[in-house]
Amino acid sequence: MLNTSQNRLSTGQLRQIKEFAKEMADTGINFFVYDTDLNLILNFSGEKFISDYESSAGCAKQVLDSQTGAIQELEAGSQFLACCLIVDGTTAAIIVIDCGPGSQTVSFVKQTLHIFVRSFQNDVKNSQQIELISSELAQTYEELMLLYKMSTNMKVSQSDLNFLQLACDSLMDIVRVEGIAIFLEKKNEDARKLVLSAGTGLISIDHKNDNMGEVLFERMLDVLASGSDALIDSEINGVFKYEWHGRIRNIIAVPLSSSNKVIGMMIATNLLDRSDFDTNDIRLFNAVATECAIFIGNQNHFRDLKELLIGSLKALVNSIDAKDQYTRGHSDRVAIISKWIAELYAKTKKISQEDIQKIYLSGLLHDIGKIGVSELVLKKPGKLTEEEYEEMKNHPAIGAGILSEIQQMTDILPGILHHHERFDGKGYPKGLAENNIPLMGRIVMIADSFDAMTSERTYRKALGVEDAIKEIEVNLGKQFDPIIGQIFVRSDIDKLWEILQTGQNRDQYGENSIDYGTAAIGALLD
Amino acid sequence: MLNTSQNRLSTGQLRQIKEFAKEMADTGINFFVYDTDLNLILNFSGEKFISDYESSAGCAKQVLDSQTGAIQELEAGSQFLACCLIVDGTTAAIIVIDCGPGSQTVSFVKQTLHIFVRSFQNDVKNSQQIELISSELAQTYEELMLLYKMSTNMKVSQSDLNFLQLACDSLMDIVRVEGIAIFLEKKNEDARKLVLSAGTGLISIDHKNDNMGEVLFERMLDVLASGSDALIDSEINGVFKYEWHGRIRNIIAVPLSSSNKVIGMMIATNLLDRSDFDTNDIRLFNAVATECAIFIGNQNHFRDLKELLIGSLKALVNSIDAKDQYTRGHSDRVAIISKWIAELYAKTKKISQEDIQKIYLSGLLHDIGKIGVSELVLKKPGKLTEEEYEEMKNHPAIGAGILSEIQQMTDILPGILHHHERFDGKGYPKGLAENNIPLMGRIVMIADSFDAMTSERTYRKALGVEDAIKEIEVNLGKQFDPIIGQIFVRSDIDKLWEILQTGQNRDQYGENSIDYGTAAIGALLD
Repeated sequence: MLNTSQNRLSTGQLRQIKEFAKEMADTGINFFVYDTDLNLILNFSGEKFISDYESSAGCAKQVLDSQTGAIQELEAGSQFLACCLIVDGTTAAIIVIDCGPGSQTVSFVKQTLHIFVRSFQNDVKNSQQIELISSELAQTYEELMLLYKMSTNMKVSQSDLNFLQLACDSLMDIVRVEGIAIFLEKKNEDARKLVLSAGTGLISIDHKNDNMGEVLFERMLDVLASGSDALIDSEINGVFKYEWHGRIRNIIAVPLSSSNKVIGMMIATNLLDRSDFDTNDIRLFNAVATECAIFIGNQNHFRDLKELLIGSLKALVNSIDAKDQYTRGHSDRVAIISKWIAELYAKTKKISQEDIQKIYLSGLLHDIGKIGVSELVLKKPGKLTEEEYEEMKNHPAIGAGILSEIQQMTDILPGILHHHERFDGKGYPKGLAENNIPLMGRIVMIADSFDAMTSERTYRKALGVEDAIKEIEVNLGKQFDPIIGQIFVRSDIDKLWEILQTGQNRDQYGENSIDYGTAAIGALLD
Repeated sequence: MLNTSQNRLSTGQLRQIKEFAKEMADTGINFFVYDTDLNLILNFSGEKFISDYESSAGCAKQVLDSQTGAIQELEAGSQFLACCLIVDGTTAAIIVIDCGPGSQTVSFVKQTLHIFVRSFQNDVKNSQQIELISSELAQTYEELMLLYKMSTNMKVSQSDLNFLQLACDSLMDIVRVEGIAIFLEKKNEDARKLVLSAGTGLISIDHKNDNMGEVLFERMLDVLASGSDALIDSEINGVFKYEWHGRIRNIIAVPLSSSNKVIGMMIATNLLDRSDFDTNDIRLFNAVATECAIFIGNQNHFRDLKELLIGSLKALVNSIDAKDQYTRGHSDRVAIISKWIAELYAKTKKISQEDIQKIYLSGLLHDIGKIGVSELVLKKPGKLTEEEYEEMKNHPAIGAGILSEIQQMTDILPGILHHHERFDGKGYPKGLAENNIPLMGRIVMIADSFDAMTSERTYRKALGVEDAIKEIEVNLGKQFDPIIGQIFVRSDIDKLWEILQTGQNRDQYGENSIDYGTAAIGALLD
């Protein structure tokens, strides 16, 4: 009797109709429900008389054709009442009641049916409203969680790319699109360039080959200038506003802007469950993009400050090195060699990237105490007297003293104070031996010596690289830590030499030589 | 006929009943609706017979006493049907239908009334659900907007106190409480201290007098340690868990925590529209408090870095000053005097706080170029030869050269390059005159000279303050800018002298002398 394949009634609605039909049948009428293909889907008999099914179906057809929710009285050998049940503006089912021939109760039945239909329609409306608000609630809640998750990840110590990727991934969880991507403007010496910085899914714009990112960015800026909050384009009305290649069905682009400065854009292409982006999407994408922009603004601010600091420190050590033409560039090179050794050592022992960065910085600042040594001693050609040598030997302690005033420098002091300790205990200032010498000191000792040997001095020519390496090998266990020294002499010294000569290692330092130092500064902060 | 004072029906519900009553009356019955005080609030007559109002009211009383929604058939000279309409679990109105004496249609009327009552109750339930979800939606949306507003204010360049105040104010807009406050832990040399850092409304805990903040903080930490997300206490069950003074009716405290470190707490007291804080409040307060903690974490990170930088710069200039016992502390003092002059000048001309901070920094770094001047010249007792003097005159250009490598230092270079230009054009290195000399240069020139005159030199005793001031007065328009010089000589030099001697000005620099410098570093970043 039940055929649900065609009807569009919910289980709850069907249950409601069934309940009503039973109660009505109890009053003695026969009750029929048809789907829109005029299949009988419910049938309750009052068992007072037998209905003519054909007449009943005929009534159903008649009201279905009229497509109104009003109750119609029909005479077909018996007194029929019939009406459509409307769901979402179209008929979902047809009720036919056979009151029997010459019935006295038609007006009552009609009245009751009328009340039921009104109640039913009201219920449909309410359910739809509940469904709508519930789905809005769910979506708002999802957005709330998304923005909250983003904001708890806005620590400046977090990496840029992780944050942007989190933004794309999280948004993808909420909005069903093929792909989401973030492009950032990078300043170059000569021009600005748009760089794809994070993305999820399939981004249907070809930035690499046809520079589509730049084109899209310009289009978005135009749209923003005209007062809109986003560029939205689709073929929903048959034509795109802009020309896109074939893969694009619809697209949204919003700015990453902070303090009214546009620093990039977030885009999404090809909705999977809807035909066009709407105002909700504009609001959500803008909110996430703004959080990204704020985060990047903070990161840039922070990076600027770190650059300023590493720049100041380099300027300082360069000025000290420059006092003696023979040590020009020495501190920078010792920093690079110290880092080189620390990275090799990290392959055998557990030391962190932060430790390596601190070793780099202690290499950079190891001779800072020379600012307190008189020039007569520093620049003296030839051998120092006993007294002059004693003054020279003060520089590690002076350097550590200067930096000990700065709380954040605490971790790199060992490399500065102990870079003249010898492994056999015959060094200065403390005469520490073997593993009593802090690791930083043992590493900077080797780096400092290698650079000194391979540089020209007033009293001798520079040693060749091979001779310097031999000299270190001979002194393993005496001047130098034998394990770390071995690691160094067995490393790819030619590669190191190239880095020292060109001043930078593009593989490792990224775009410019200040980058590693800038990152290293971060290690001084907890 | 209508008396709404007692009934708890909504306008919509009343309209629904009225509509039904009219339709039913059209079938020939008489329809009555009573409120719960048994006042007749609706009355529709089918005009077929006249009802006995007392019998009708009696039926109403009878079903009201029974308190069920079931339809009762009552015989009181006429055939009555009566039932209660239940809203929120209690009777809101009573329907009484008089079918007339010996009516044949009672069972139909009863059936129709039954369907109406079911539909009515269903509607009440639906409306309540819609209302509930709608209010949840509104609240979630408000929370979304709040968290979003907070996150767009998470720029590190924003001040701490503004952000925390925004958090309190915004939360107060959503949650109806008497007051909200944020306490932060401040590290002191010897101990940790809880400081009231932002607040809105009336906070009912007396932190100043009875240290209630600390007590509350400890209680909150205990509760967190036991796995809860918040401390909540109220007398909702008659007794508080903790002892509070009389003003507290209920209280919530959540931690400001970032990376599992609790750095403070957010509290709210005395809900105005509810009796106790609930899980929604816990979630919302925790979300806002977490955003505050992240923001403060970023700020601290940023401040640490600025401190590190100003510390490094001060260590550098101190080392340079220390090479000559007669210039010890000179750069620090010139920075303070330059700031002093700039602040006085700011009262007459429009220069910003950032400009003053840059002038302070250029005062601090003005002699940095002396690192490139030989010690023989720097420390020479007595008059310099022509050649030595020429070398000495290089230091402004050397200093500017060193710092010009650092992009963020650009703005302070004029103070370094031009601090030896004379107003009459007879200075160096450029021989600029009058307003062609950058303002920074003119200010640092006065500050530098005043400190030099009041300090002992190898070749002369220190001048007294009054003599130095006279010397500057005599040279207004010659060595010094006459307007800025006038402003300086007329200022409260005794006060300045006190600042220079004690090394700090508690009124202006806040808690310690590094604070102003740390803030000043911020001016170098855009």
